[in-house]
Amino acid sequence: MTATPLAPGSTIGILGGGQLGRMLAMAVARLGYRTAIYDPDEQAPAAQVANRHFANAWNDTGALDQFAGMCDAVTYEFENVPVETVEHLERLVPVRPGSKALRTAQDRLLEKALARKLGAGTAEFAAVETRADLDAAISKTGLPAVLKTTRLGYDGKGQARIAVEADADAAFAAMKGAPAILESFVHFDREVSIIAARGLDGSIQAFDLVENVHRHHILHTSTVPARIEPAAMDGALAIISSFLETLDYVGVLAVEFFAVRDGDRHRLLVNEIAPRVHNSGHWTEAACTVSQFEAHIRAVAGLPLPDFARHSDCVMQNLIGDEIDELPRLAGERGVLVHHYGKAEARPGRKMGHFTRLTGAAGVDSSGL
Amino acid sequence: MTATPLAPGSTIGILGGGQLGRMLAMAVARLGYRTAIYDPDEQAPAAQVANRHFANAWNDTGALDQFAGMCDAVTYEFENVPVETVEHLERLVPVRPGSKALRTAQDRLLEKALARKLGAGTAEFAAVETRADLDAAISKTGLPAVLKTTRLGYDGKGQARIAVEADADAAFAAMKGAPAILESFVHFDREVSIIAARGLDGSIQAFDLVENVHRHHILHTSTVPARIEPAAMDGALAIISSFLETLDYVGVLAVEFFAVRDGDRHRLLVNEIAPRVHNSGHWTEAACTVSQFEAHIRAVAGLPLPDFARHSDCVMQNLIGDEIDELPRLAGERGVLVHHYGKAEARPGRKMGHFTRLTGAAGVDSSGL
Repeated sequence: MTATPLAPGSTIGILGGGQLGRMLAMAVARLGYRTAIYDPDEQAPAAQVANRHFANAWNDTGALDQFAGMCDAVTYEFENVPVETVEHLERLVPVRPGSKALRTAQDRLLEKALARKLGAGTAEFAAVETRADLDAAISKTGLPAVLKTTRLGYDGKGQARIAVEADADAAFAAMKGAPAILESFVHFDREVSIIAARGLDGSIQAFDLVENVHRHHILHTSTVPARIEPAAMDGALAIISSFLETLDYVGVLAVEFFAVRDGDRHRLLVNEIAPRVHNSGHWTEAACTVSQFEAHIRAVAGLPLPDFARHSDCVMQNLIGDEIDELPRLAGERGVLVHHYGKAEARPGRKMGHFTRLTGAAGVDSSGL
Repeated sequence: MTATPLAPGSTIGILGGGQLGRMLAMAVARLGYRTAIYDPDEQAPAAQVANRHFANAWNDTGALDQFAGMCDAVTYEFENVPVETVEHLERLVPVRPGSKALRTAQDRLLEKALARKLGAGTAEFAAVETRADLDAAISKTGLPAVLKTTRLGYDGKGQARIAVEADADAAFAAMKGAPAILESFVHFDREVSIIAARGLDGSIQAFDLVENVHRHHILHTSTVPARIEPAAMDGALAIISSFLETLDYVGVLAVEFFAVRDGDRHRLLVNEIAPRVHNSGHWTEAACTVSQFEAHIRAVAGLPLPDFARHSDCVMQNLIGDEIDELPRLAGERGVLVHHYGKAEARPGRKMGHFTRLTGAAGVDSSGL
C-alpha cells in the first residue's frame, strides 16, 4: 500500500503544547505544513511556533470541533490527553496514533499485559486496588517492589518503593485510593530505549538503541550507541515492531527497557511504552538526517520513512531547572547542539532544555545511491 | 569584550518573511527566543512559524515603531529592505547587521569598490549612467561584458550581456535609465562562496568553502567540500574577515567568488556579497552542528560562535518551481534532508524548497573537550 502524503500547506493538529509539541511543530514547518496546537495552557511553548493555538479545555467539544475542522490530521505529544478527547476527534479527522495506543499507554496494567502477550519480558507485576490486594501482590513479586498508580504517572510521580513489609501501609496510602500496580524491583545492569516509527503504509524504521541514565526519576543522559551487545538491538526492534503492529500504530513509539545481565549477555524487560516522541530520542536531531520529530510527522503526513541515517555518535543531556543557565556556556563548545524550550520559569525539576554533544563519526554516504 | 546574550524569551525582529526568515525563525525558537516578522506580504512563509507578523509597508513608521517596541534586536533576511527603514529602526533598537552593510550590499559599485579597497580581486568594472559612459566602460572592461543595474538585482534580474559592440544599445535600454555597472565577463573555472559570522564580541567563525553551480542565474547545487586547493579557503577567509571588520558587522555574511584558474592554483575574484544568510549555506543545516541560521541568530543575540563542526560532506540542491513535486520521493532516500518552504504557489523560477544529501563523514568528536 502506498500512502498519499498530505498536500503541502495542510494543517497538522497537535494535542499538547509542551517542548515535544514545539519540536514537532518545527518538523511540521520544515516539511511545508502548518501546525495547530490544542493545549489549555495559554503559555504553551509550542504555541510560539505554531500557526494557531486553541487554549481550550480538553472537554470543550465546540473548540475540538473547530480544531478538527481546520486540521488534515491530528497527533498528540503526550499520553495524558484524555482518551475521550481523542475519541471525539477520531470521528472527525484522522488521529495518528489513535485512541487504542493511547488507552494502552495510559494504563500500566494494560501496557504490561500487552508486553507479556507479545512475548516480551517484564518485571513481575500484579494489580492492586485494596490493601489485601497489596499483600497478595507482594507474595507474587517479592520485595523490594515498587507500587505505582496505573494511570497518569511520569518522571517518578505516583510511585512508592516497598523495601520491607513495613513500608506497605505507607505505600498504599500514597496511592490515595487510585488503582495501582505492584512491580518487582528489577536489578538492571543499565536502562536502554528504542524509538521507531511506523508509516501510514505499515513500514517500520527504528533509530539505534539508546542507553539512558536517570537522576531523581528524570532522564539525565542518553548515549548512542548504547554499550550493549548487537543482539539486544535486534531484540528491542522485534519487540517494538510487535507493539507497532498490534496497535495498528502510525507515528513514533518509544519503548523503555531494563537490561538485566544474563551471563555475558542481557535480557530486555519492557519498563514502559510512550506513544509519542520521547525525551530519549532528542539526540536524533543532532546525529541523524531525519530526527524523531520529523519521523513522527512524516508518518502522520503519509510521507516515506527511510533509514534515518545516523551520521554521528553522541550524548544528549537534559537541562533541568536552573541548569538552563549553563546554556550560553555550552553553546560555545564545538560539536554541541543546544536547545532551549522557551519556558519562562525555571522551576526545580522542570525540563528547560537539552544539549547533544557529538562524540565521533558514524558516517553517512548516500552519494552512490 | 564579552557580550551579554539576550535573555531567554527575548524577541528578535526579522525584516522580510521569505524562506530565509522562516529558517531563521526556527533557529530563534531553538534558542528559546521569540520572533516578530515584518513583511508587507500577508502570505509571508516566515509568518507561519513566528509569534507575531507585521504585514505593514516598509515606510509605515507607526508600525515600525510598534515593531521596534516589542523587539530586543532586529535583523533582516534580504538586502532589498529600504535603507531608510533600517535607519529608522536603528534609532530605536539594535539592528544587526546595521545600515552600513546594507547600503554597501545594495549597490554593486560600492560593493566592488570596497572589495578593491580591501585588496580583493574583482572583475574589471566601470560605472554607467549614460550611453557615452557605456562606450567608455567597454573600452575599460573589454568584451564580452555584463551590464547590471547597481541596485536591486538578484538571481540574474536587471542584467544584460554585451558580447559584441552591437549589443550595447539593447543592453543600455534594458537598464531603463537606472544607474548601472559594466563588469568584464570572467572566464571562471568554478564558482565558490564562503559564509562566515561575526559575533557581538568581534569573533569570527567561517563555514567551509562551498562550490556552487548556477542554472539560469539561479543557484542549482552547493557542494562541500569545494574541489579547490586549501589555500583558496585561506584566501576566502581573509577576504570575508576584512569585509566583516570594515563593516563592523554582526551576523552572517556571504561572499560569492569566481575562481579563475592561474596555473595549478586559483585566483578568487569577489562577485558579490550578501549581508544575510545565503542560499549557498543551506547545506549547513544538514552537515554542521550549528547551521548558518543559528550562527546568525547567535551573533544577533550575543551568544558565542564556536567552530561550527561540520560532521559530513554533502550536496545541497534547490527545488525550483514544480521541482518541488519531487520532495516526497526525495524524502524516501537515505541520508537526504528535505526542506519545503510552505509557499502556496509553485511559480516557474520560484525557490520552493531544497534538499541536502550527505555524501560521507567528516567526523566531529568533542567527547574529549
